[in-house]
Amino acid sequence: MNDLNPADGELAYDLDRAHVFHSWSAQGALTPFVIAGGAGSTVWDFDGTRYLDFSSQLVNTNIGHQHPAVVGAIKAQADILTTVAPAHANLARGEAAKRILARAGSSFGKVFFTNGGADANENAIRMARLTTGRDKVLSMYRSYHGNTGAAIVATGDWRRVPNEFARGHAHFFGPFAYRSEFWADSPEQESERALQHLERVIQSEGQSGIAAILIETVPGTAGVLVPPPGYLRGVRRLADKYGIVLIFDEVMCGFGRTGEWFAWQAFPDDDGPVVPDLITFAKGVNSGYVPTGGVIISESIANAFETQVFPGGLTYSGHPLAMASIVAALDAMEDDGIIDNARTIGTDHLAPGLAALAAKHPLIGEVRGLGVFWALDLVSDPETREPVSGVVIGQLKKELLSRGLLPFSADNRIHVVPPCIVTPEEVATALAIYDEAFTAVEATL
Amino acid sequence: MNDLNPADGELAYDLDRAHVFHSWSAQGALTPFVIAGGAGSTVWDFDGTRYLDFSSQLVNTNIGHQHPAVVGAIKAQADILTTVAPAHANLARGEAAKRILARAGSSFGKVFFTNGGADANENAIRMARLTTGRDKVLSMYRSYHGNTGAAIVATGDWRRVPNEFARGHAHFFGPFAYRSEFWADSPEQESERALQHLERVIQSEGQSGIAAILIETVPGTAGVLVPPPGYLRGVRRLADKYGIVLIFDEVMCGFGRTGEWFAWQAFPDDDGPVVPDLITFAKGVNSGYVPTGGVIISESIANAFETQVFPGGLTYSGHPLAMASIVAALDAMEDDGIIDNARTIGTDHLAPGLAALAAKHPLIGEVRGLGVFWALDLVSDPETREPVSGVVIGQLKKELLSRGLLPFSADNRIHVVPPCIVTPEEVATALAIYDEAFTAVEATL
Repeated sequence: MNDLNPADGELAYDLDRAHVFHSWSAQGALTPFVIAGGAGSTVWDFDGTRYLDFSSQLVNTNIGHQHPAVVGAIKAQADILTTVAPAHANLARGEAAKRILARAGSSFGKVFFTNGGADANENAIRMARLTTGRDKVLSMYRSYHGNTGAAIVATGDWRRVPNEFARGHAHFFGPFAYRSEFWADSPEQESERALQHLERVIQSEGQSGIAAILIETVPGTAGVLVPPPGYLRGVRRLADKYGIVLIFDEVMCGFGRTGEWFAWQAFPDDDGPVVPDLITFAKGVNSGYVPTGGVIISESIANAFETQVFPGGLTYSGHPLAMASIVAALDAMEDDGIIDNARTIGTDHLAPGLAALAAKHPLIGEVRGLGVFWALDLVSDPETREPVSGVVIGQLKKELLSRGLLPFSADNRIHVVPPCIVTPEEVATALAIYDEAFTAVEATL
Repeated sequence: MNDLNPADGELAYDLDRAHVFHSWSAQGALTPFVIAGGAGSTVWDFDGTRYLDFSSQLVNTNIGHQHPAVVGAIKAQADILTTVAPAHANLARGEAAKRILARAGSSFGKVFFTNGGADANENAIRMARLTTGRDKVLSMYRSYHGNTGAAIVATGDWRRVPNEFARGHAHFFGPFAYRSEFWADSPEQESERALQHLERVIQSEGQSGIAAILIETVPGTAGVLVPPPGYLRGVRRLADKYGIVLIFDEVMCGFGRTGEWFAWQAFPDDDGPVVPDLITFAKGVNSGYVPTGGVIISESIANAFETQVFPGGLTYSGHPLAMASIVAALDAMEDDGIIDNARTIGTDHLAPGLAALAAKHPLIGEVRGLGVFWALDLVSDPETREPVSGVVIGQLKKELLSRGLLPFSADNRIHVVPPCIVTPEEVATALAIYDEAFTAVEATL
């Protein structure tokens, strides 16, 4: 732990409340948690109290906090060159692109770097529109794709509604067996019906006008909605059938979160994995140590812009500090076996541990996930699957925090999303805390 | 200079061409310049050849390359904590917001941090729409506001045209006496007529439906279009008259570029400076050392979101590394007298030096600017003011680069935009290089 002074915590809180405007909030109601430092799966406040970070902040610290190799690479690059205009070349940028492409496979040709996930999606949408000559973008109601002009309207959840100032977007329902929109009785039927619904939306929106289908490979903030068997392949077939560009948003689910480099590699069928045309990324690519994101572009879409001008760009595209952190983070994930750890933690520890938790606590209606990417869907009634209220979520968060676990919540859910480097011992500790917290909250209901 | 190996330059070039997708370009035609390192007003390649950086990269390195205090602050923060979710508080974020607000003055209440200038404008537009309950955004044809959904459609230049997928945007002509859209004979008349035109656009677009007027205080990439006397005051009066939120985009012109902290502070009248409701920033706030940007929010607009939820946000809002670099950059600008230097360089060195250059070279139709923010408007005929072709600009760039100056060009112009820390000696060297390069190109015409 760095040197800590409790007065700095008060100062940080006071300065924040006086001067800082926060995301997605009414500003008056906020009581932000002050973080002083972190290491691995742990963060601490200025009093020295330590918390297991089972939020990975905003599901981004896949290599944990303060990985020494990545911190070292940022400092080394800071000594050489912090910034360069995007038109110029720099070594870190090429090295980062090469490593990302090596993970995505041979159908991909180039990487366009952005500042985060939102503008990654903006630029992927732009590429799809310009290469197809079509306008419309289809995306799921249960989704989040970023807060900028097109990304927020591609988003399906409530955050879209006050922001509908972009045209050309339509939404469809994805598969979600636990809360089926298709009156399905099994994951297989859910998959089949969701695909039939998507094809009907394509036809109804005008098949020849649709540029892109944009989906989170595993919708994240919407509830870790693991695609049922056959769904991704079916979407790929529909995209091919109608000449639509298929974009997988891997901002949250990519780079280790599912126990694979990319989430789409976690669901192979007899024909191998389902490969999209464009992949958008941010978060896990460098665990958010420096703001960055980007689009991994298929060879054929990249080729379309060999002679045609690509009308998009930004000052910090391929920023050296960000690029150095990507190089180091991907190398660390490889060297430390971090992807394998995430997969093993998922299969051997979180899957059975969360299932046992659900068996014990009637509040937990469903456990969904893989790797280090799980949701507990909380219900007031297991039969009707009525979501719990925000009050219950608030109580749970308080109980978890008071026991030393920093939680992630969304709607009626607790998401269990530790770093990919989490250990079996940390998972065991966390499972015990979740157990106690559920017990405490259930006692009040 | 860091250790240099020419083979690394070849590697950087080859990796870039193989794997990196570039902004605003046809990819096949690119031959990117490889930058190995930099210090102050200088960058160098892997052969050790040094160049005076009179581009400031993308007009962002206001404190020059590799300011030791800012590099040190990034490294120190990297050792403490690189990343934190936006909902939590961290000390660097509060300290950064406090310093920014101190420069903006007492009418401003809070800062919302983003990843760059584009999403700063996205969120400023969002704030204007939500507080007015109106849709439309007026901005100038001669402008650039970023590459994301709403920002690119607020943009006026050619980059908007293939990207018009946002609604609610209308454009007007700003004042530009050298190439007047208003048949004006003087800067005063240009100002008056530009304001009359703006009011007619407001009325014609429907005054009660206009949420925001978004302007670069000094339009930058459009040609360093210094507002004529009375223009900014006039825009403020129209905004007040029609209940419109006034947003000054200071992404390029803010934080020292004009010789003031904010460009709007460079044009006071008898009533003082013309103060906007929202200020967007990026680039100069930390010289782009870490990707960041934001919105400085008036007290009254900030208050509107005390109880109303603000529906915008992003993972890296208030990112600790970026915040630490802002704190250090603003302190360095203060401690080193960097703002004063930019102003003095403008008045005592660039203004007379560039005027002398223009007197000598008929290619230079007009010199415009202030501080370290200047444009040479190049013409093939001083009478008709016919812009020179891209071929001439290409020749000039080659002549400048071969003499050791890294230039900035846009359309028919060379922008003279060194760091704010540039010395009189460096300006003298640069002026001699510009002189030689113009002579060389004029000899071929």
